[in-house]
Amino acid sequence: MPATYTLGLDYGTNSARALIVRTSDGQEFGSCVVNYPSGHQGILLDPKDHNVARQSPLDHLHCLETATKGALAQAAKKRGFKAAQVIGIGVDTTGSSPIPVDKNNQPLAAQKKFANNLNAHCWLWKDHTSWREAAKITTLAAKHRPEYIAKCGNTYSSEWFWAKLWHCHNVDRTVFDAAYSWVEMCDWLPAILAGVTDPTAVKRGVCAAGHKALYAEDWGGLPDKKFLRKLAPALADLRDRLYTEAFDASASAGNLCDEWATKLGLPAGIPIAIGEFDVHYGAIGSGVAEGTLVKVIGTSTCDVGVVSAKKEVADIPGICGIVKGAILPGYYGIEAGQSAVGDIFKWWVEVVCGGDDKTHAAYTKAAAALAPGESGLLALDWNNGNRTILVDQRLTGLLLGQTLHTQPAEVYRALIEATAFGARAIIERIREYGVPIKRVVCAGGIAEKNPMLMQIYADVTGCTMLVAGSSQACALGSAVSAAVLAGAHPDFATAEAKMTSLKDVTYKPEPKARRTYNQLYALYRQLHDSFGGVSQNADLGKVMKDLLTLKEKARA
Amino acid sequence: MPATYTLGLDYGTNSARALIVRTSDGQEFGSCVVNYPSGHQGILLDPKDHNVARQSPLDHLHCLETATKGALAQAAKKRGFKAAQVIGIGVDTTGSSPIPVDKNNQPLAAQKKFANNLNAHCWLWKDHTSWREAAKITTLAAKHRPEYIAKCGNTYSSEWFWAKLWHCHNVDRTVFDAAYSWVEMCDWLPAILAGVTDPTAVKRGVCAAGHKALYAEDWGGLPDKKFLRKLAPALADLRDRLYTEAFDASASAGNLCDEWATKLGLPAGIPIAIGEFDVHYGAIGSGVAEGTLVKVIGTSTCDVGVVSAKKEVADIPGICGIVKGAILPGYYGIEAGQSAVGDIFKWWVEVVCGGDDKTHAAYTKAAAALAPGESGLLALDWNNGNRTILVDQRLTGLLLGQTLHTQPAEVYRALIEATAFGARAIIERIREYGVPIKRVVCAGGIAEKNPMLMQIYADVTGCTMLVAGSSQACALGSAVSAAVLAGAHPDFATAEAKMTSLKDVTYKPEPKARRTYNQLYALYRQLHDSFGGVSQNADLGKVMKDLLTLKEKARA
Repeated sequence: MPATYTLGLDYGTNSARALIVRTSDGQEFGSCVVNYPSGHQGILLDPKDHNVARQSPLDHLHCLETATKGALAQAAKKRGFKAAQVIGIGVDTTGSSPIPVDKNNQPLAAQKKFANNLNAHCWLWKDHTSWREAAKITTLAAKHRPEYIAKCGNTYSSEWFWAKLWHCHNVDRTVFDAAYSWVEMCDWLPAILAGVTDPTAVKRGVCAAGHKALYAEDWGGLPDKKFLRKLAPALADLRDRLYTEAFDASASAGNLCDEWATKLGLPAGIPIAIGEFDVHYGAIGSGVAEGTLVKVIGTSTCDVGVVSAKKEVADIPGICGIVKGAILPGYYGIEAGQSAVGDIFKWWVEVVCGGDDKTHAAYTKAAAALAPGESGLLALDWNNGNRTILVDQRLTGLLLGQTLHTQPAEVYRALIEATAFGARAIIERIREYGVPIKRVVCAGGIAEKNPMLMQIYADVTGCTMLVAGSSQACALGSAVSAAVLAGAHPDFATAEAKMTSLKDVTYKPEPKARRTYNQLYALYRQLHDSFGGVSQNADLGKVMKDLLTLKEKARA
Repeated sequence: MPATYTLGLDYGTNSARALIVRTSDGQEFGSCVVNYPSGHQGILLDPKDHNVARQSPLDHLHCLETATKGALAQAAKKRGFKAAQVIGIGVDTTGSSPIPVDKNNQPLAAQKKFANNLNAHCWLWKDHTSWREAAKITTLAAKHRPEYIAKCGNTYSSEWFWAKLWHCHNVDRTVFDAAYSWVEMCDWLPAILAGVTDPTAVKRGVCAAGHKALYAEDWGGLPDKKFLRKLAPALADLRDRLYTEAFDASASAGNLCDEWATKLGLPAGIPIAIGEFDVHYGAIGSGVAEGTLVKVIGTSTCDVGVVSAKKEVADIPGICGIVKGAILPGYYGIEAGQSAVGDIFKWWVEVVCGGDDKTHAAYTKAAAALAPGESGLLALDWNNGNRTILVDQRLTGLLLGQTLHTQPAEVYRALIEATAFGARAIIERIREYGVPIKRVVCAGGIAEKNPMLMQIYADVTGCTMLVAGSSQACALGSAVSAAVLAGAHPDFATAEAKMTSLKDVTYKPEPKARRTYNQLYALYRQLHDSFGGVSQNADLGKVMKDLLTLKEKARA
C-alpha cells in the first residue's frame, strides 16, 4: 500500500499555512506560510475607529492557492510523496469571521463597487465595532431567550456572528442588503474548494454555528425569527438564507471541484472536512481528550476542552460556549479564551518601546532574570477587552506599581504574568463547574519559543504545562480531520494517537514561585473584580503597598 | 552711585547654578550651571535599593567654586560690572537634604574611611530609605505630640530630616556616631561661605527647620528630648548638637570669609543670606505675595504660597507644612508638592521608550494634537509616591485605558495630565481651608518650554497660568534675599517689585477642554481615593467604560 496524505489549511490572523501530513504517522512532508497581502499585517484597519478589524476574502483565496502550492512543492522533494496520494483536505480559520456573499457565494468584496468598503469584507474575529449590538443582544436574550446565552457565558460578544451582522445592518444598509447571505470563513473556504455556488447549500460547521451564532438542536437551530425580529426585521428575513442544520466533523463539506483541483494540482473529488475554528482543530492536532485542556497561545489565546456528550454539562458563567460536536463528534466542545496575549507583548515591545525581534529577545532575557514579585508591577491583560470570564469588550489595559526606575523588560514580564493570571481565572472557573482539567497541552508559537512564559504559566496556574508535538497544531488537526473523513483511520481517537504527539519538554510548577504568585494572583483578582464590575466594595488602598512589600522581599 | 549686584546660588537635584543680578532691576549679568560630577546625573544610587538617593557634599563645594567663577567671568564681560560691586550672596538648595558633619563642620564624606559610604554623604531630598521610620514618627507623634505633625499634613515623610537621621542610626551606627551634627544643605553652604567651623554655630533657616525638622516656636524649637528618646536615645542626645533657634530671611547667615572670598574673587565680609529651600527662594524670585501660588515645575513640583502672620491659619490635612517665616519674613509659608513631575516624563521617554530629547519633542508634538479624553488613558502621578495630599511614599504609578493601539505619545500626554490632576488636588485642598489662590505663577524649565503642559494645567485646574520672568527664579530669589539683607532695598515687597517680573505669556482655561477634564478629574479622584486608601467603597467597574465613552466622543 502506498502512503496516503492529507492537506491541512490553517487561516490565522496575519497569515495562512498549508501542511501536507502523512496519515499513517502524522509526519509533516511539506508546509508553506503565506502572509495576507492586504492591510496592516493582513488586517484592514480604520484609523478613525480602533474597533475595526476586517480582512480581504480575496486574500484568503490568494493564500489558498499559494500556500497549498508551496506545501506541495516542498513535499514533492520528499521521497515517496505524490500529489495524487493526497486523499483529503481540512480547513480551519479564525472566527467568528463572517463574510457577506452574493447569491453565487461570491464575496461582496470582489465586486468593484464594494472593493474599498470595509463592511463588504470579512469581519475578522477581533472586530469590535458591534459592541453596542452585542450588549443589546445580551439584554434581549436575557429577557426573551435566556437559554440562548446560557451556553455562551450569559454574555453575547461583539466578536460574534449576530452582533456583526446587526451592526452592518445598522451602519451600512447598502452592504447589508446586497448580501444574499453571510458565511463564516471556516465554512466558506471548504465550500469554495467544493465548488458550492449557492450560499444556502454551504455545509456549515456546528463549531462556528454553535459557538458564535446561537445555533443549537435544543431550539431547532438558529435563533427563531420572532427573536431576530426584535433585533431587526431584515435579520429575521436573512434567517431563511442562512442554514437550518450545522454539522460536526463526522460530516463532509463536499468534494474537491475540478476548478480548484486543477488550480492546486490535487486529485479532483477528494473529500473536504467540515470547517472548524483554528483552535478547535488545533485541539485535535494537540491530542485533545476528556480531562485535557488545550491552550493555543498566539496573538490571543483559546482554551478548548471536550466532555463526553453522554454526560450532563452545566452552563458555566463567563465561558464562551459549550457546543455539542464543536471539536470532536460525540463530545461537547468547551471554549474559553483571552482576547489578547501575544498581541499585548507585541504592543509593548514594538508600539510602545519601538523595538523589534531582537528587543523581544533582550526583554525576554532580562525578564527571565527576575524573580516573581521582584518588579513590583501588576497588570491586567485587557488591552483587547476580556473574553473569559468577564465577557466584556469594554475593558482596557491596566498597569500599576511602576516607579521612576521601572524598566521596560520588567513591564514585559508583568504583561506575561497578567496573561498567566487571566489563564488561571479561566482554569479555576471551568473546574469550579465540575469539568476536570488533568493536563494542559499548549500549542502555538509562543508555547514553543518562550520557556520563560511557559514556566510562569506553570507557576501561576499550578498546572504542569505540556507542549504539542507539532508546531502547526491547527493545520495538523485539520489534516487529522481530513484523514478520518477519507477513511485513513476509523475514528478521531485512533487518528490522534497515530498522527499527533507531545514535545519532550514539560514545565512543572515550582513551589516557591507558586507561593508568591498566589499572593500576586489575589491582588490581580482584586483589580480584576473591581474594574471588571464584579465587586463594588474593593479596598484597594493596600494593593500598591502589598506589591512593594513583595518586591522588597524578592530583592532581599 | 555705581550699580550693585548680588550673587544667587541655586542647588538643584542634578546641577548647581550661580546667577549675578543687578539689584536695581534684577537684570541678569552672568550665570553658570555646573553638573554635579559624581553618581548618575549627580545622584549617588544603590542598584539594590531604589529608595537610595544621596549626593556628594564635595560636589557641592566643587560647584560652589566653578559655578560662581563661571558666572563672574560672564558678568565681567558686561559693561559696568565689577566683582567688587557684589554686595551679598544668597543660597538655596533642595531639601530636606541633611549632611552628617564632624566637630569642625566638615562633611563625613570628606574623610577617607567614609568616602565610599553612601550613608556618610548628603541624604538627598528624594531619598526614601527611611519610609519605615517616617511611618513610625507619624504614629508616635499622633499619639504623643499631635501638634508636631498637624502642621505638616498629619504625616511625617521619608523625605524629611528626622526620618533620615533615624534611619541612619538604625542601619549604620558607625556613621551616625561619627556625625557630631547634621546640617541641612541649605544651611551648610552659607555656613561654609561664612567660614563657620562649629556645627552648633551654623545659623539655621526656619524654612528647613520648620518644614522638615518639626521646629516651631510654639513648642520651643525642635522636638523635645523626651519625644526624641522614643525614637532613639542617641537622637535625643544629638538634639544638643543641633540648634535651638532658627531664623527667617531677615537674619544673616554670616559674612563671606577670607578663604572663600579669595577662592571666588569676591569681596570678603559681604553678608550671606539665610539659606532657604530652592522653591522658597524660587517663590520670591517669582514675585510671591498673598493670593499667589507659585509652582516650581521641574523633576518634581513644589507649590508655595504665603499668608500674613497676623492672620490665623488652620492646619491643612495633607499639606507638607505651614511655617512662619519660611519664605518671607512676617508671613506663613505654605508648602505642598508632587514627588515627581518632569521625572515621570523623563522616565517614560528615556527609560521606557529608550528616547532622547528629540523623542521628547516628537511626543510633545504628537500629544499636542490630541484632544482631552482622546487617548482613553488615565494615569496616577505616583511613580515617586505622593507628597501632597496623601503624604504617602508607599504609592506607585498606575496607567489604565491602554489598548493594543495605544501610542507612546498618548501615554506621554496622559502622564502630563496625571500631574495636572495632582496639581488640581493640591489647589482644591488649599482653597478648601480658606487660603485664597487668585493667581498661579509657574517657574522652572518645564513651565517655560512646554506650552502644551501649561495649557493642560490651565484646563485641568481652571486657573490662568502665568510664567515667572526669570528662567532662574530660584537663584534670582536668593539674589533678591541677598539684596534685601545687604540693604539695596528696604524690604522684600520692594525688592520683588524691582527685581522680578512675569513673562508675556498667559495660559487661560478653555471651556470645552475644561468640561472634559472635569469628567476625567472625577475619574482620577476615584482612582486616587481608592488606591490612596481614602475611600474603601469605590465602584470602579465603570472607569474603563467611561474612559472609552470620552474617547469615542473626542474622536467623533
